[in-house]
Amino acid sequence: MFKTYVGPVESEDNVAYLRPETAQAIFAQFKNVLETSRQKVPFGIAQIGKAFRNEVTPRNFTFRSREFEQMELEFFIKPDEAVEAISGSVAAPTSKEHPGEPQTDWGWQLWHQYWVEERIKFYEGIGLPRTTLVEYWQKAEELAHYARATVDILFKFPFSKRDEKGELMGEELEGVAARSDFDLSQHARFAGKPMGVFDEELRAGWAKLPKEKQDDLWRRYYENRKKYLTKMGVEAEAASKQATEDANGLVKGQYVPHVIEPSAGVDRLTLALICNAYSEVIETDAKGKSETRVILKFHPRVAPIKAGVMPLLKNKPELVKKAREVRDLLRPWMNVFYDDAGSIGRRYARQDEAGTPFCVTIDFDTLGEKPELLDTVTLRHRDDGRQDRVKISELLTLLLEKIR
Amino acid sequence: MFKTYVGPVESEDNVAYLRPETAQAIFAQFKNVLETSRQKVPFGIAQIGKAFRNEVTPRNFTFRSREFEQMELEFFIKPDEAVEAISGSVAAPTSKEHPGEPQTDWGWQLWHQYWVEERIKFYEGIGLPRTTLVEYWQKAEELAHYARATVDILFKFPFSKRDEKGELMGEELEGVAARSDFDLSQHARFAGKPMGVFDEELRAGWAKLPKEKQDDLWRRYYENRKKYLTKMGVEAEAASKQATEDANGLVKGQYVPHVIEPSAGVDRLTLALICNAYSEVIETDAKGKSETRVILKFHPRVAPIKAGVMPLLKNKPELVKKAREVRDLLRPWMNVFYDDAGSIGRRYARQDEAGTPFCVTIDFDTLGEKPELLDTVTLRHRDDGRQDRVKISELLTLLLEKIR
Repeated sequence: MFKTYVGPVESEDNVAYLRPETAQAIFAQFKNVLETSRQKVPFGIAQIGKAFRNEVTPRNFTFRSREFEQMELEFFIKPDEAVEAISGSVAAPTSKEHPGEPQTDWGWQLWHQYWVEERIKFYEGIGLPRTTLVEYWQKAEELAHYARATVDILFKFPFSKRDEKGELMGEELEGVAARSDFDLSQHARFAGKPMGVFDEELRAGWAKLPKEKQDDLWRRYYENRKKYLTKMGVEAEAASKQATEDANGLVKGQYVPHVIEPSAGVDRLTLALICNAYSEVIETDAKGKSETRVILKFHPRVAPIKAGVMPLLKNKPELVKKAREVRDLLRPWMNVFYDDAGSIGRRYARQDEAGTPFCVTIDFDTLGEKPELLDTVTLRHRDDGRQDRVKISELLTLLLEKIR
Repeated sequence: MFKTYVGPVESEDNVAYLRPETAQAIFAQFKNVLETSRQKVPFGIAQIGKAFRNEVTPRNFTFRSREFEQMELEFFIKPDEAVEAISGSVAAPTSKEHPGEPQTDWGWQLWHQYWVEERIKFYEGIGLPRTTLVEYWQKAEELAHYARATVDILFKFPFSKRDEKGELMGEELEGVAARSDFDLSQHARFAGKPMGVFDEELRAGWAKLPKEKQDDLWRRYYENRKKYLTKMGVEAEAASKQATEDANGLVKGQYVPHVIEPSAGVDRLTLALICNAYSEVIETDAKGKSETRVILKFHPRVAPIKAGVMPLLKNKPELVKKAREVRDLLRPWMNVFYDDAGSIGRRYARQDEAGTPFCVTIDFDTLGEKPELLDTVTLRHRDDGRQDRVKISELLTLLLEKIR
């Protein structure tokens, strides 16, 4: 970690460290957010921000660096014992697929699976095909002591190692961990502030359970809490006492939420998007001369420039005026690059190289040379060079649909 | 500043400081951005990011803190001598108003005035009326040594000091400085990398000037460069030699751009927005009981939640279904809060307190109880409680126009 001193004196009292991860702020603020945002478990708190690690060997461009951006979600769920008390049983995973819309009888396993699949859907949604990703389930011996399951989502970077078959093995973009109630419990213990919630559904559900079921759930919750406390070094007697209190709380609708944590590196993701987008085409001109052109095939959602706007010719004031109107129409809604320099082919090529998914060209038909084409423009698509004729009045809606 | 060490050893070789401002990265990367983005002077580079200052007395909530977010624009312009060579003369400011669309004959004074007024327009555009702002022109003796003019834009915080008339004096949100060519020149000198640009317009314009004018501009540019170098401690002879080289460069279309820098604190601005939005109303119910309600009157552009979506009753499945459809219609485009708990009046009041500018209510008319109102909703406005009837098919466009 990076160490520094806060205040004028460099004394041990004033030592501070740059945070090596962003997640802890969410746990520290959990009760505050819960109480002010009118949410009920299950719900999540997401955050994006800088983290700093004093890496000895930063490497692979922005893959491993000392200052980086993290994005994390702490998704808080009911402990399985509470789910069972409310719904009668905890649903078991039936396949490896996305489990669909969340249900009240989901325990940590299905929530974990849900978030793994949601996160992969997110990556697919910004242009990383599933074939470029690896879903790696950590083995029991690899798991952090508090984790019940962790799935790493890897991207096959060009600099990744290869396995014995020659396949890229991938590097971690994100980890999706089922962290039990470890984090909130630790904060509660060391800050001396209760981190539990009251769940009216649980209280009402518990009262309706047969005595046998109540005893069973009480025992299991007690055992889980005791296990956590003992693992953390609390002495047997104190652990039993605390676990008894916790299980008695469950009866009244109280528990410490469990957490599913998808945690991703933003810089890594950006690097993955660039690697995935990079492609080259070889084009041969009329004279037989070949040229290699670069196209960055970013998904429209993540392309830094969404549209290039171009008058066919820059020395025709009517074309320029119309092109500027189109630019001003789009600009409040998206990043637009206005370009009037050089041949239209060169201008398209420049936007291809910058990864701009759409080019809008204003030509003489826009001005009404063919009356039926008045106030239409050419919409040119980066990846296949396809050109459509689009009404200016429909352009904004059409592009917004593609980039949102 | 905050001091730390990079790498495993805490030696003087490994000392690093957390950046106390974000601007320098823009200057260091100036040539890189210029060469890859196909921009010509005048153009700007904007940046937002964290900065850190080891303040001895952080105070006034988030007004002065040790870690803060800055947003800055370095807007690069031609030196006045280049403008004069190209346009024949440099336009003089004629009033204190916004000078309108940029013109090629603007020198640093009009560009500075332009950015001061643009920045005030920005603050007005997110809901801070001009009456809450103070435009403070720094006096000659207050200016930093490199600055030709600096305007501070202040906001009248409730904790600001008052002048002898009892008026709030305001605290700085932003400074807009005309920094001459100081920054790029310093980077050029200490990094040993040229930071000048080549300007084809200047080269072409210069060639057409009468000899007398050329000599006059050469001399003035020479004097300005020499003054800068001497001030920076360069010896007279070396300064003369360097200034001669620089002025000879001007003849060929080369110069170091000057800069106008609007630099603002994001946390301060957020605090200003909250202070400005906070208002209370006293409401008296039918029984004569008074209650104070808080309304956060955020401009729709900056309100954290844009719309509350509410079925009139939560136990009517048709209302709930329709309300969820409306929520799903809006949610890809804006932050929406779905609320079905409590009376509709209480739900409105909760959104008022969170600063949500619009509430959308789905009632029996939405379902067609009055056939002419089928698929319309109530749109309720936070600040005056006004209620309009709006078609669901027109809702998204209407709200997007208000929040963009």
